[in-house]
Formats: sequence, structure tokens, C-alpha cells
Amino acid sequence: MTQPTSVAPWCAKVITLFPELFPGPLAASRVGKALQAGLWQLETINLRNFGHGIHRLVDDRPLGGGPGMVFRPDVVASALDSTLSDRQDDRNLWPLICLTPRGRPLHQNDVHQWSQARGVTLLCGRFEGIDERVIQKYRFDEVSLGDFVLSGGEIAAYALIDSVVRLIPDVLGNAESLKEESHSKSLLEWPQYTRPRVWQGLPVPDILLSGHHTEIAKWRELEAQRATQRRRPDLWQAYQADSEASTDK
Amino acid sequence: MTQPTSVAPWCAKVITLFPELFPGPLAASRVGKALQAGLWQLETINLRNFGHGIHRLVDDRPLGGGPGMVFRPDVVASALDSTLSDRQDDRNLWPLICLTPRGRPLHQNDVHQWSQARGVTLLCGRFEGIDERVIQKYRFDEVSLGDFVLSGGEIAAYALIDSVVRLIPDVLGNAESLKEESHSKSLLEWPQYTRPRVWQGLPVPDILLSGHHTEIAKWRELEAQRATQRRRPDLWQAYQADSEASTDK
Repeated sequence: MTQPTSVAPWCAKVITLFPELFPGPLAASRVGKALQAGLWQLETINLRNFGHGIHRLVDDRPLGGGPGMVFRPDVVASALDSTLSDRQDDRNLWPLICLTPRGRPLHQNDVHQWSQARGVTLLCGRFEGIDERVIQKYRFDEVSLGDFVLSGGEIAAYALIDSVVRLIPDVLGNAESLKEESHSKSLLEWPQYTRPRVWQGLPVPDILLSGHHTEIAKWRELEAQRATQRRRPDLWQAYQADSEASTDK
Repeated sequence: MTQPTSVAPWCAKVITLFPELFPGPLAASRVGKALQAGLWQLETINLRNFGHGIHRLVDDRPLGGGPGMVFRPDVVASALDSTLSDRQDDRNLWPLICLTPRGRPLHQNDVHQWSQARGVTLLCGRFEGIDERVIQKYRFDEVSLGDFVLSGGEIAAYALIDSVVRLIPDVLGNAESLKEESHSKSLLEWPQYTRPRVWQGLPVPDILLSGHHTEIAKWRELEAQRATQRRRPDLWQAYQADSEASTDK
């Protein structure tokens, strides 16, 4: 554990109607062990506690009509005001993120950036959405997992927190793993093989048993390029543009 | 409940090293109520049960060197053979999906398609990956959530199952909600507003209080287009191409 005791561990604050869903999967495996070890912290804020009236209502019908329910701006603001301290007012040091299908898709570059922050505050959307005024006023960073729709932001919050926490020093045992993986260098990973050497008549590629480390590295690079070109023409185009730009220098 | 009793409900089979993480968030809210009501089913298969030796080992070092561990093809195959029946051999009726950062990104079109299937079998990756031979031999559909890296496939499985289940008839109360949401028609959703009508000096847009339904619909469409153009130039380009194509007909 190299983390100096004077620095508070990275902290995820989650505003949700379902606090009982946390830590959930974030208590498992290495991310969970790191939580137990105090390498990161998790705090949930129950949005319901800030609701109105004896039913603690947090939402209302969309103005202008339409189906579903929308989180009220005053309720969301009360929850935020209860948890955001002055030091969390710098959105670079402490990002404020709203998980919604309207957001830009989460990317590993965000994950890297947020792992350098002191923590994040996440608002998990539900129903039709969140009143636009509170999103604007509090300068939320609106993020989605991708081009698909979830019942709510809680599963997206798991994904965001998991992806960030595994980049925190000492959480994964093997820092080398982080460097070679998909999206760290804009190519997909190469295919992996393990024992048995022949399985159901299918041998692993000879090169992997050759012991020639340079040749193996070359083969893997080529396979990573092939997979990217075939599966993700968008990433491949960006990778080629990057490569050409560095050659020109 | 319109589902005829003669048809088995949609079923998710999840092969994982962490069966205790299920149903997890899938037991909450409407998706969870639908699980209880029998509108869909969930089955977990513990990969550990198919491991080798007294330690039930499921993985081994990557051949050719490198960090991390790779799922053995024979162990994955044993787990699959235990759960895939003949009727699940048609990959259209019963998709076999592997959640990995090497996969193509999940899209709402997949979600729609899979909600029409009888069920899906999901393999949750961990460590460095899964032996390529078993992926090829069993014709896995390799899927990722997006361009970020998770500790394992379990959170991705939540996302996939949640997004599919909410499209199953009767799971969400309000079918109308499904039609208007982001990604159902390749535009992001318009901004939403609810009460109070003025909050911290910020009024909701006048048009939403006008009662002119046609004008409101026009305004929302325009706002949806604006949001898409600003936030997702890629979606916007595709939307424009589609619109032009339909005008040409």
C-alpha cells in the first residue's frame, strides 16, 4: 500500500432511489477487496430522503405532457446541497456526473481522468429523466454507457465506478495488465490462448510456443490490428490517423 | 398479462465465477417485479463447478507469455455443454454472447433483436480473457458495453439483461415510454421539465405551458435534433442520411 495516509482515498458518492443496490457487485473481487482495504470509498445518498410530503415524492409529470415521470429540480438540488462541500465545487477535482441516455458515451479517457480526481458524485436517473434546469445549474457532466437504454442509472454507476477504481494504484495486483488491454492504446486486444495446447483437435498458434518473444510481440500486434480493422473500423481509422501523425513528426 | 402460458418466458442464462451477484440489481424496480411475476427467468451457471482438480481451476497463464490469466477452453466448453440444449443451437433463437472489451459495442438494435429471442446465454469474462478457440468453436457473439474496461463481464451482463427485459411486453407499465426515448429513433431525447414552474428564478420554457400540443411536439423535436447535433455528431449524421433517404423515395 503506497498511498500516504494524509490523502483521503478516492470516493464515489451515489445519489439514488435504490441505495440498497450498493455496493452490490462493487463488493466482489479485487475492487471489493480494495473497498474493504480502504483504497477507495463509497457513499450513497438516498434521493427519497429529500422528497416532498409524507410520500417523499421526488418526481412529477413532464410539463407539456407525455408519459413517465421527471425528477424535480428542487429535490435533486437538496440532495446535492447536502453532500457537495466547497472543496467539491471544482468540477475537475470532483466531477459531478449524471447517468442518462442523453449523455455522451463513457470512454476510457474519461475513466482515466476521473481516476485522477479526488472522487466523483453520480446522480442515477430513472423514469423519463431529470429536470433540465438542475442539470444546467449544477453543471452536470451528462454521460451514458452507450447507445442502449437502461431502466435506470444504477447499473451505469456500477460500470463507471468499477472502471475507475481498477485504475487506482494497488487495486489490481498487476500494473502491467492495465497497459496492454483494449482501449488503453486504441487497439483491441489480441486473441488469447492457454492450455491445453491442443483442444478438440484445435492447436494454439505455433508462434506462441516458439519462445521467440520479439516474434510473439509482432504477431500479437498484427492480430490486434486485424481484430480492430475487422471489428471496429472507427477505432482503426483513428489509430491509423494517429500513427501517420507520429510518423510525420 | 397477455403472455400465453404455453410459451416459456424469456430466459437469461449467465455463466459466471460470481453467481452470488445475481439477480443483484435485476431484482429491483419493475425489472425485478417482472422477474418475480415470471415474465422472464434468470439462471446462473457457476463456472467454478467445471474447473479442474481440487482447486477447481478455470484459468491458466496465457501461452506466449504476458500478465494475467485466460479462461481454459475445455472448462468453458463443459459449462456450455451442461446448459445449452438442442433447441438453443439456433443462435438467432438463442444468442450465445460473450461480454468482453474485444467485442463490438452493444446497441439498442441488438437489444431489440434479443428481446425477440427465446433467451440468451451470457459468458462473463474475467482476467485477461477467454481462450480464442472456444469463442470460435461455439460461435460466440462478442459484445462490449463500450470503449472502457470493466473488471469483468458481470456488470455488463446486468446492463444487457436490464435493457432487454424492459422491452418484454408488460414489464414496463407504459408502452408509450418506450417509443419516445433516446436511441429508439436515432435522436437523443428532448430536455424534460417538471414542477415547480419557476425554480430558483428559472422558469420552464413557455411553450410547455401553452397547451398547444402540436407546437410542443415541434419544439421537442427541434430540441432533440439540437441535442443530438451538439452532443452526438455521429448520430446526427446518420439521422440526416436516413431523413434524406426517405425524402428521396
